Amino acid sequence: MPLSEFELIDRFFRGCGAKRTDVRVGVGDDAAILECPAGMELVAAMDTLVDGVHFPHGSPPGSVGHRALAVNLSDLAAMGARPAWALLALTLPAAEESWLSEFAAGMSALARAHDVALVGGDTTCGPLCVTVQVLGHVPRSSALLRSGGRAGDALFVSGTPGDASAGLAIEQGRLPGAGEAAAYLRERFLHPAPRLALGECLRLYASACIDVSDGLLADAGKLARASGCGVEIAYEMLPVSQALVGGVGEERARELALTGGDDYELCFSVRPAHLARLLADLPPQRWGYTRIGTLTESAGAQALRGGAVMNFSTSGYDHFLTLT
Amino acid sequence: MPLSEFELIDRFFRGCGAKRTDVRVGVGDDAAILECPAGMELVAAMDTLVDGVHFPHGSPPGSVGHRALAVNLSDLAAMGARPAWALLALTLPAAEESWLSEFAAGMSALARAHDVALVGGDTTCGPLCVTVQVLGHVPRSSALLRSGGRAGDALFVSGTPGDASAGLAIEQGRLPGAGEAAAYLRERFLHPAPRLALGECLRLYASACIDVSDGLLADAGKLARASGCGVEIAYEMLPVSQALVGGVGEERARELALTGGDDYELCFSVRPAHLARLLADLPPQRWGYTRIGTLTESAGAQALRGGAVMNFSTSGYDHFLTLT
Repeated sequence: MPLSEFELIDRFFRGCGAKRTDVRVGVGDDAAILECPAGMELVAAMDTLVDGVHFPHGSPPGSVGHRALAVNLSDLAAMGARPAWALLALTLPAAEESWLSEFAAGMSALARAHDVALVGGDTTCGPLCVTVQVLGHVPRSSALLRSGGRAGDALFVSGTPGDASAGLAIEQGRLPGAGEAAAYLRERFLHPAPRLALGECLRLYASACIDVSDGLLADAGKLARASGCGVEIAYEMLPVSQALVGGVGEERARELALTGGDDYELCFSVRPAHLARLLADLPPQRWGYTRIGTLTESAGAQALRGGAVMNFSTSGYDHFLTLT
Repeated sequence: MPLSEFELIDRFFRGCGAKRTDVRVGVGDDAAILECPAGMELVAAMDTLVDGVHFPHGSPPGSVGHRALAVNLSDLAAMGARPAWALLALTLPAAEESWLSEFAAGMSALARAHDVALVGGDTTCGPLCVTVQVLGHVPRSSALLRSGGRAGDALFVSGTPGDASAGLAIEQGRLPGAGEAAAYLRERFLHPAPRLALGECLRLYASACIDVSDGLLADAGKLARASGCGVEIAYEMLPVSQALVGGVGEERARELALTGGDDYELCFSVRPAHLARLLADLPPQRWGYTRIGTLTESAGAQALRGGAVMNFSTSGYDHFLTLT
């Protein structure tokens, strides 16, 4: 027996996420009422995951719930913001209790880990599609933008990009024989970890920041373009995980690190004058980030291998282009 | 030739809606940065329209853009809030320029009429589905809630409910012969007017408020339940438009006023002690609202005709129930 829309919302989403004292009215009225802290700016992001486009059809529901929130939290991390509240618009073909229960649990666990309250949203009937909107805060005029970079700034990336795109290939059966690495790589796709703590710390050090969702080279290029410059990334400096190298080999691993999507790592630039302070205050080994290149005077995003420019058929994942 | 996702966003949505000085960063970075006014609470709503569920397949794109924003603005109106910002998550099967252009124009016109800036969002490829999230403000502790009603409060509704459901039936070819009324009724479905000015004024008079989206009787019942009481609506007092009576007859008009969906009017309760002030300060003829009933001690939502309880097969539109 199908549940009604109202019972659905009540049952699975009323207790979802963290409890926060700044939520005056949460799920259940026409809108949520929230208290913004004084001296802070509001930061708002909204991203959609479509079944069969952003995750394989039949994905574990807990992963879909996790990822729908994670991709949005990653946007807040890239601004140096601290998340507070989320709204969920869930479109699904039928009200299946077990699916909903796992989906809500996946989203709720990540929300609680980052003290995010689910304060509202909508459930509708249609092809599976999940939109999450997150709201957070940054101290006034301190947000990290894409546009703050300058030629000569050093470029960094957090984590080990490329893992998630290999994990997706494994999920889709396109990468057999990944052996022991398979579980790790799948997990990197299914449960990305938004770099919120790093993002907040970087407000004091970075000149510009972007989250890596469409591929490192493409997203570094967007940061550079917004900053009115170009970027060079050194192939040899790319951080790749042992699992990725074990699963696909060194060559392909570095290619995926440059062009694979779904990483949800941070790519950021730092003025030369601030480098020593960054490296001392946020030790790279402990915080998990690596220098990979430099912002340049001349426009464009290039990967250099032994000093020579590398060519890629596509420099990032574009949802429309990949379907044509 | 399909446009890339980034070009799409740029081309159709960068200039969409009002310009506001409290938008520090709008469309184009990882997230928007917004300045919340002091002394105000933030009000957040998010609703989805699915192709073929919330509007007929092949609907005019300008109407889809208008309605996706309007249904959300209506939620803010029900809280007595003033809207400020919106985010758009648009999932569509292909990047068709003429469709996008009309959709954006429809949304933009309504946004500008209410001084709403489009500050961010996402475009993705998939079955047509539109989620809008709106953010607005109310003075601290002054929002209208569903839960503030009390037995004995008078119940009102704005506008003439039922028109939009007849308009939808005309759109779908289910109501032939509506004659001269057809254009008016279609327009009431295609371009609902969120009652924002009325909602803001009602903060000083109403004890509770809800927006009528799923049918007046059902939504009045939700207000009553949240307020811990019941509600009686007098069939004879229901405001029905001449167009609706002309199109479907008096009897069916009142039934649609009670049970039809998609009205986006406000249903609100007022303490007996505040009635005289309400009627003097906000003349009903000028503001377009009508007394239709009373909140009661005993639970449940009932329509009374000549003092007798009316029975309906369904008391409102539930997206899941209607599809089973």
